[in-house]
Amino acid sequence: MTLTIGIVGLGLIGGSMGLDWRDRGHRVLGVSRRPETIERAIERGACDQASCELDLLQSADVVVLCTPLGVMTATIDHLLPHLADSAILTDAGSVKAPIVAAIAPRYPNFVGGHPMAGTADSGIEAALRGLFVDRPYVLTPTATTPPAAIETVAQLARDLSARVYQTSPDRHDRAVAWISHLPVVVSASLINACLADADPELVAIAQSLASSGFADTSRVGGGNPELGLMMAQYNRDELLRSLRGYRAALDAAIDEIDRQDWTALGDRYTASQQARPKFL
Amino acid sequence: MTLTIGIVGLGLIGGSMGLDWRDRGHRVLGVSRRPETIERAIERGACDQASCELDLLQSADVVVLCTPLGVMTATIDHLLPHLADSAILTDAGSVKAPIVAAIAPRYPNFVGGHPMAGTADSGIEAALRGLFVDRPYVLTPTATTPPAAIETVAQLARDLSARVYQTSPDRHDRAVAWISHLPVVVSASLINACLADADPELVAIAQSLASSGFADTSRVGGGNPELGLMMAQYNRDELLRSLRGYRAALDAAIDEIDRQDWTALGDRYTASQQARPKFL
Repeated sequence: MTLTIGIVGLGLIGGSMGLDWRDRGHRVLGVSRRPETIERAIERGACDQASCELDLLQSADVVVLCTPLGVMTATIDHLLPHLADSAILTDAGSVKAPIVAAIAPRYPNFVGGHPMAGTADSGIEAALRGLFVDRPYVLTPTATTPPAAIETVAQLARDLSARVYQTSPDRHDRAVAWISHLPVVVSASLINACLADADPELVAIAQSLASSGFADTSRVGGGNPELGLMMAQYNRDELLRSLRGYRAALDAAIDEIDRQDWTALGDRYTASQQARPKFL
Repeated sequence: MTLTIGIVGLGLIGGSMGLDWRDRGHRVLGVSRRPETIERAIERGACDQASCELDLLQSADVVVLCTPLGVMTATIDHLLPHLADSAILTDAGSVKAPIVAAIAPRYPNFVGGHPMAGTADSGIEAALRGLFVDRPYVLTPTATTPPAAIETVAQLARDLSARVYQTSPDRHDRAVAWISHLPVVVSASLINACLADADPELVAIAQSLASSGFADTSRVGGGNPELGLMMAQYNRDELLRSLRGYRAALDAAIDEIDRQDWTALGDRYTASQQARPKFL
């Protein structure tokens, strides 16, 4: 089925969706606040039509909110008056409970969504075809979300060749706390702890000797500070829960090393070695 | 200068050294406990001569101990009677203070060493040319180590195209605790903590959604359990020190998230982002 799809926010995610959906025959209408972005989105082929004005979206069958989390609810206030009565609304936010709580009561034909893909870059210039291929795309309907709306958004996700999952907003946020938001704090703390060594000369030696193990473990902790902050702000309760679980595991390892309980520490390492492939 | 170099232990490290040193014109004598290893080391070109007997090394100018840490001091007992009076002894152990403390008092012409290179594989079949190119090679002499011995081992490290560093055994062990041994505990604890979530269905969702961020942060924690144990056993005091520093950094981040002190958390992430390139 060919749809008219509105995309609000033409960055890496929104722009990449537009490229792929147009390739699949859908008609894509794009909205961005910045005229330069509109122009580049059209030039790059991410939209059939684009505008700085939300009234462009009156003919859209489905509208996807791809703005940063911080402006999503404010955008909703401006967007809702422009939607057709039957339009399905979805979003691409990386935290779901607060977004679903803010939008679903005001717009029942809404399906929370989280396409889990990205690159280190952002903006319309970073948009690329195939970004979502074989990546998870999580839908987080509530008990009252219309099944037809869920199926339409699921089909659009499949049109991106994504793997579609469905769970509740709360369970989504708990799962991404473990696998996406917790690793940022764990990883940044590795860098912060080493920097805090009282001996600056030792820090310099450590920096000279660091290799791929340190590079990998510290990678997500050395990323964009604004993204890290956003995760902590929007998913605070679940992040704190996972951090406390993490600290308990760390303390158990410290205690085993302190007591020289090498059997228990060996079992711990064996468990992590055996479990890791299930996360890949 | 062309030397006769003895290598005790023909695994990934010893075998790779033999390949490169022979290419540079040195004569390499290899010793391994296993006859199959001797045979393959010769076939692969890692040694000019090889034997299961340490008396092969009587003509060596330099002898490099490349056995696992666990058998290094026991090997010394058997090796010392076979060394020529002027022979220089060095080792390739990844922890230095206990090795230097065990060997230097018994054999003054000893220079502790740590070639910081490796792959996920081990054994003579894993040996390869160029393993040490542009990798750190740390020498850890003491106040009484003969300068000529230090310079000879440094030249052999340069013959492998390694970057040579020199520091004390204690400072080496403290630095590698930060950049090599601590990341293993940090990384394994991430996997262990997620597995400990009380809800098995949630763990399954998390495993489905995990992507490159989790994969990178968990990589060294999913490695060989024996290597992780060895680091904890041989470098216990420094690992505990770095773990306590790490837990302090983690606790500070948890506290900031709990208090919603986004300015402090943002500064923390900015510091880790800015510092990370210095470790690469």
